[in-house]
Amino acid sequence: MRSGIGIGVDTGGTFTKVMAVLRDGTILRERQMPTRPDAGPRDFVRRVSEAVRQEEAELGARSVGVGLAIAGDVDSDRGLVRFSPNLRKFDRYPLRDALAGELRRPVFVENDATMAAWGGFVVELRRRAKNVLVVAMGTGVGGGLVIGGRLYHGSTGSAGEIGHTAVEPGGAPCTCGARGHVEAYAGSYGIVRLARTFLRGRRSLLNRLCPDPSKLEPRLVAEAAGRGDAVAKRVWREAGRRLGLAIADAVYLLNPDVVLLSGGVSRAGRLILDPVHEVLREQPFKTPFEAARVRIARTANLGAIGAGLLAFE
Amino acid sequence: MRSGIGIGVDTGGTFTKVMAVLRDGTILRERQMPTRPDAGPRDFVRRVSEAVRQEEAELGARSVGVGLAIAGDVDSDRGLVRFSPNLRKFDRYPLRDALAGELRRPVFVENDATMAAWGGFVVELRRRAKNVLVVAMGTGVGGGLVIGGRLYHGSTGSAGEIGHTAVEPGGAPCTCGARGHVEAYAGSYGIVRLARTFLRGRRSLLNRLCPDPSKLEPRLVAEAAGRGDAVAKRVWREAGRRLGLAIADAVYLLNPDVVLLSGGVSRAGRLILDPVHEVLREQPFKTPFEAARVRIARTANLGAIGAGLLAFE
Repeated sequence: MRSGIGIGVDTGGTFTKVMAVLRDGTILRERQMPTRPDAGPRDFVRRVSEAVRQEEAELGARSVGVGLAIAGDVDSDRGLVRFSPNLRKFDRYPLRDALAGELRRPVFVENDATMAAWGGFVVELRRRAKNVLVVAMGTGVGGGLVIGGRLYHGSTGSAGEIGHTAVEPGGAPCTCGARGHVEAYAGSYGIVRLARTFLRGRRSLLNRLCPDPSKLEPRLVAEAAGRGDAVAKRVWREAGRRLGLAIADAVYLLNPDVVLLSGGVSRAGRLILDPVHEVLREQPFKTPFEAARVRIARTANLGAIGAGLLAFE
Repeated sequence: MRSGIGIGVDTGGTFTKVMAVLRDGTILRERQMPTRPDAGPRDFVRRVSEAVRQEEAELGARSVGVGLAIAGDVDSDRGLVRFSPNLRKFDRYPLRDALAGELRRPVFVENDATMAAWGGFVVELRRRAKNVLVVAMGTGVGGGLVIGGRLYHGSTGSAGEIGHTAVEPGGAPCTCGARGHVEAYAGSYGIVRLARTFLRGRRSLLNRLCPDPSKLEPRLVAEAAGRGDAVAKRVWREAGRRLGLAIADAVYLLNPDVVLLSGGVSRAGRLILDPVHEVLREQPFKTPFEAARVRIARTANLGAIGAGLLAFE
């Protein structure tokens, strides 16, 4: 029997990733299964348990534990989801205890961006940083924190929510119901909204790349910008500067050594990173901003990897 | 000889407080001396050493160490000030090593708001909290963090600077050179600026309490508001709501159990606290905002006390 394997489970609204990793973050196996949120948490726990057992059988190893990453308001102390918009039936269900009961091994539940922070810290930074902010850029903007080399999830497991930093009073509507949060500009729906706004009445490569405006997505806006389109470049500059403002606030407050951008939208690379750096360079305080390196993560699936790695802690 | 005494030194631009404290924060003695920044750091170190020796002689006790609190950009690892607007001649001078050499005991140097955070955690909260943000409200707005029951000063000693949270793009000028930072609304100079703006052409009790607008100060604005003056009440509501926005950002990011307001401006009590609570109640996310109690510190001189207490750690 091989030993030293952690299992990470990243639970999305549609698909759930199950990943077996070594202590250094090497991925041994990964599989995807439907989440089926409408079938409820008991069904989910049963199918995750099966998947974990199958992974272990294939690898000839028993895992040291299972980390479960979930988008939403997670109570990591009690091992349950307080509220998740995509998994309504899971609310308040004792996920950790149910899964631990099925599998007879330790289970840890955390917000997915918190898990991604741990994955980024171990895999991307090789633990060679002390204080790290990970900004998880997908549909929304989440985040997680490593403080003093340890995962920090805050007093109720809610820490790291940089996406709800207010950057424009009364500004664009955020999915949370408030206005002017940075995710309403730099989350994928915010980027699409900016693109539609900036496109109005203007000629742009975007119209050719995506004749149906309801199908716009950040990847296309990045492609157009990469080919020099002025409207698309303006979108990234606006999204990146707004993100830069939120990161500047976080650097003033937390004074991290690294800010790591992860997730689909971060694939835009320099299109999003350059305006962030621009805003940080504009700050009159030099010391914390010189100390904070802002980078884009190269590894995909940091949430699942981090969940698997947390099983070793 | 009595034992178990820490000495805290809070270095202001004009006066320096020297305080002898017990491990629980009880103040045994305090004195004030002129800082005399123009005489330079050697002179300052010599006079602080004398003051510390005199305090010890009066108490018949040798201190366990000395904590030195300084407003500015402090390199706590090297024990020096990188930049302090009021103490220009101190920049880069090895304060800690010079003072430790004179006194032959451990010396710790931290930003004054960071020291106040430790003081607030021990004295106000009796360590009965894990994650605490202290907002130090004076001329400017500083701050400090306790994370997991330990003082957190960030990667370069710069953590906690909530005063430079951007709350209004292109807004009021901050002393740092940027615009729209929360301290430009909720620091004492910001409050005075708001009062002058809102006073224009309006009848207000403030005109009677302070016929010379150049002598306006937050204490007078609080007095007028306490007596029902509409202009003064509007000032506190604006300052408090701006502060609430910055605290909301910090709660999303850090998920603390307590936010403690300290310093002169916090003496305004409910005038500043009510609009802060109002903004926090408006946030759509409930869990982190229900967990974070926002309070006003009752103890004065938390910076000096915290500096003395840090000597025990």
